[in-house]
Amino acid sequence: MSHSVCIATYRCHDDKADFNKKAQGIAVGLTVGSWTDLPEARKAEMEKHLGRVLSVTVYEPENAAPGERYADLVIAYPDVNFSRDLPALLVTVFGKLSMDGRIKLLDLDFSPAFVSAFPGPKFGITGVRELLGIEQRPLLMSIFKSVIGHDLPNLREQFYRQALGGVDLIKDDEILFENPLTPLEKRVEACMEAAEQAQAETGQKLLYAVNLTGSTSKLAANAKLAIAAGANALLFNVLAYGYDVLHELSSDPEISVPIAAHPALAGAFYPSPHYGIAAPLLLGKLMRLAGADLVLFPSPYGSVVMPKEENLAVQAALIDPALPVKASFPVPSAGIHPGLVPLILRDFGQDVVVNAGGGIHGHPLGTAAGGQAFRQAITATLSGISLPEAASQPGNEALQAAINSWGYKE
Amino acid sequence: MSHSVCIATYRCHDDKADFNKKAQGIAVGLTVGSWTDLPEARKAEMEKHLGRVLSVTVYEPENAAPGERYADLVIAYPDVNFSRDLPALLVTVFGKLSMDGRIKLLDLDFSPAFVSAFPGPKFGITGVRELLGIEQRPLLMSIFKSVIGHDLPNLREQFYRQALGGVDLIKDDEILFENPLTPLEKRVEACMEAAEQAQAETGQKLLYAVNLTGSTSKLAANAKLAIAAGANALLFNVLAYGYDVLHELSSDPEISVPIAAHPALAGAFYPSPHYGIAAPLLLGKLMRLAGADLVLFPSPYGSVVMPKEENLAVQAALIDPALPVKASFPVPSAGIHPGLVPLILRDFGQDVVVNAGGGIHGHPLGTAAGGQAFRQAITATLSGISLPEAASQPGNEALQAAINSWGYKE
Repeated sequence: MSHSVCIATYRCHDDKADFNKKAQGIAVGLTVGSWTDLPEARKAEMEKHLGRVLSVTVYEPENAAPGERYADLVIAYPDVNFSRDLPALLVTVFGKLSMDGRIKLLDLDFSPAFVSAFPGPKFGITGVRELLGIEQRPLLMSIFKSVIGHDLPNLREQFYRQALGGVDLIKDDEILFENPLTPLEKRVEACMEAAEQAQAETGQKLLYAVNLTGSTSKLAANAKLAIAAGANALLFNVLAYGYDVLHELSSDPEISVPIAAHPALAGAFYPSPHYGIAAPLLLGKLMRLAGADLVLFPSPYGSVVMPKEENLAVQAALIDPALPVKASFPVPSAGIHPGLVPLILRDFGQDVVVNAGGGIHGHPLGTAAGGQAFRQAITATLSGISLPEAASQPGNEALQAAINSWGYKE
Repeated sequence: MSHSVCIATYRCHDDKADFNKKAQGIAVGLTVGSWTDLPEARKAEMEKHLGRVLSVTVYEPENAAPGERYADLVIAYPDVNFSRDLPALLVTVFGKLSMDGRIKLLDLDFSPAFVSAFPGPKFGITGVRELLGIEQRPLLMSIFKSVIGHDLPNLREQFYRQALGGVDLIKDDEILFENPLTPLEKRVEACMEAAEQAQAETGQKLLYAVNLTGSTSKLAANAKLAIAAGANALLFNVLAYGYDVLHELSSDPEISVPIAAHPALAGAFYPSPHYGIAAPLLLGKLMRLAGADLVLFPSPYGSVVMPKEENLAVQAALIDPALPVKASFPVPSAGIHPGLVPLILRDFGQDVVVNAGGGIHGHPLGTAAGGQAFRQAITATLSGISLPEAASQPGNEALQAAINSWGYKE
């Protein structure tokens, strides 16, 4: 098979199906429509459009209980059949098929020709590190405690307290939309002013990811307004708008700041074993291909739980060197306090953003101490010092207080 | 509660949860963030932003097996918290929450103020009927047999054969993207020419829904190019682009033709009992609010099955007079042959589009006879004549042949 193809892997649950036949039906049905009844001369012309079954692996335990039997189907779709955009690819490989029984899209492998239409993240891990001037250590992100119903002075003060604690990134809440109390440009101005004020004290740069919202056709203009007002990063609810919108935003040369992808709505797709789109594809590979510089996803530590192996598979997709675009920064989120830092760094390595909300604002000594406790935990862990030992050192009172409140894991 | 609110209904499966507590956590967490620890003066200011639990209904059979216990939670979200667009509403009510355990979004009730931002379908059932000059009878739609790898003369010929059979609408395949063999404008020109040629013989108008594809920012321009080339309807893979894109297209005064929403990717959302978004909301209410004039969804008759009660709930959402926008035409699709027409009309009434592919092209006397057989079945059913009786009448040989091939249901 010499044609350029994109390859889809599906998991299909069925107690009785002939999975080989099903795979053949998909490969033909989603490409040329029919095959065996074509005249030979026509087959020669159509061959380059024909999907191919690459493998069918049936999992059929003896005495399988109902619902246990499944197969992984791997099918190649010729690039010539679809335009080089994600809506076209997704509709081809999982449009009608998504409704055809218990079938889940596990993975996609893009052809080099398809990928060539995607510049990928403009900054990625290395670019975000360069903007912040931080070469190696894990980054620290914090989120506002609450934003709805708060005015500009309040948000500015929350921002300042977070910044004082030494965080590298502060992100808007994903549910903060255009509103009269804290409109986009005014919010950016107030928060960036607070960032400068804090930087005068801490000497530290930070990125503020302001939530990009509104009508699809106005997003690029809103992004440019935010950037003109001083925004140095954006937060974006990708799945509420579609990957193609992220792709167009990230490809826009005038949108010259990192974009953090929020996973809002992702739980409508990934958690079922039978339906939907697997998290490593949904939040990993597709977000990265579409150009997300940072990607938030549920951590394995908090109340909003994703199993750890799925987490690590999302991370792997965000940094996999096989995809020829920049790596996206993994941001495992939810339920994170300073005592978890050694675990996070062991699970995710140093190219990770430690992202905290309650673990910063809920610190017994206040928001600034919350950030400091995280930074102290990161420093200790990178130096191979246990958290209790580090916490007992002078200057690390914030870490000590955090451990007293929330405990720690080594 | 005097504030304007949108109301979300969720189904939440959990063997142990305190569902009342969970609902309270959602109502507070997705709005003001925290409540009980606010000072009284602040509560007065924040009250208009606070979400409210309207009801919690627990289904807890005695001796429930694991996985059987669930509750329906109904929560009101103040409009003041989100902008009047569907990404904002969906991110508010099901953004983070979608990832929080086994929870499915069943329904949304929009406030009048929210709905006022949505003109809804430009044509709807009545408008599509006016365009076609057909007051009451069910409409007949057909789809191409296969499109990928076919050139313009071939597509034109397929179109002509379908049109000759008396179909009211012909739609592109949803997997036909911009391609060198049948580029958008040339395709529209060739097919509309075939439509005119057929109309000279049949005297019948028809709508051709050409597939609107490409980059999000170019969709409106592509739609206008297609219309300028003669297109009198559009097909759109809404879920690959997002509801807001459909909303913007349908609101564009220059896009002056009906839009048919294809359900591609819908199966990633609706079939799980535990996760995702229920079909009547996903394919019914939201498609209609966003402006779809016709909505395709899996029929209860074919291989791609949706349970009949879910089908009827999708239809109900598309025509419910409680939503103050035009009704969208329901198009139950897949597995439909002429022998099912009495059943379809009994299930869906007369405001339905009978949509067939194989049931037209696979007719033993050819494609044109396939369309004729459907029209004969519709005429007979509306006249209260059984299909076998109608098939035996002179002139109805096409119906007889269809029944001989596929049988019939009364």
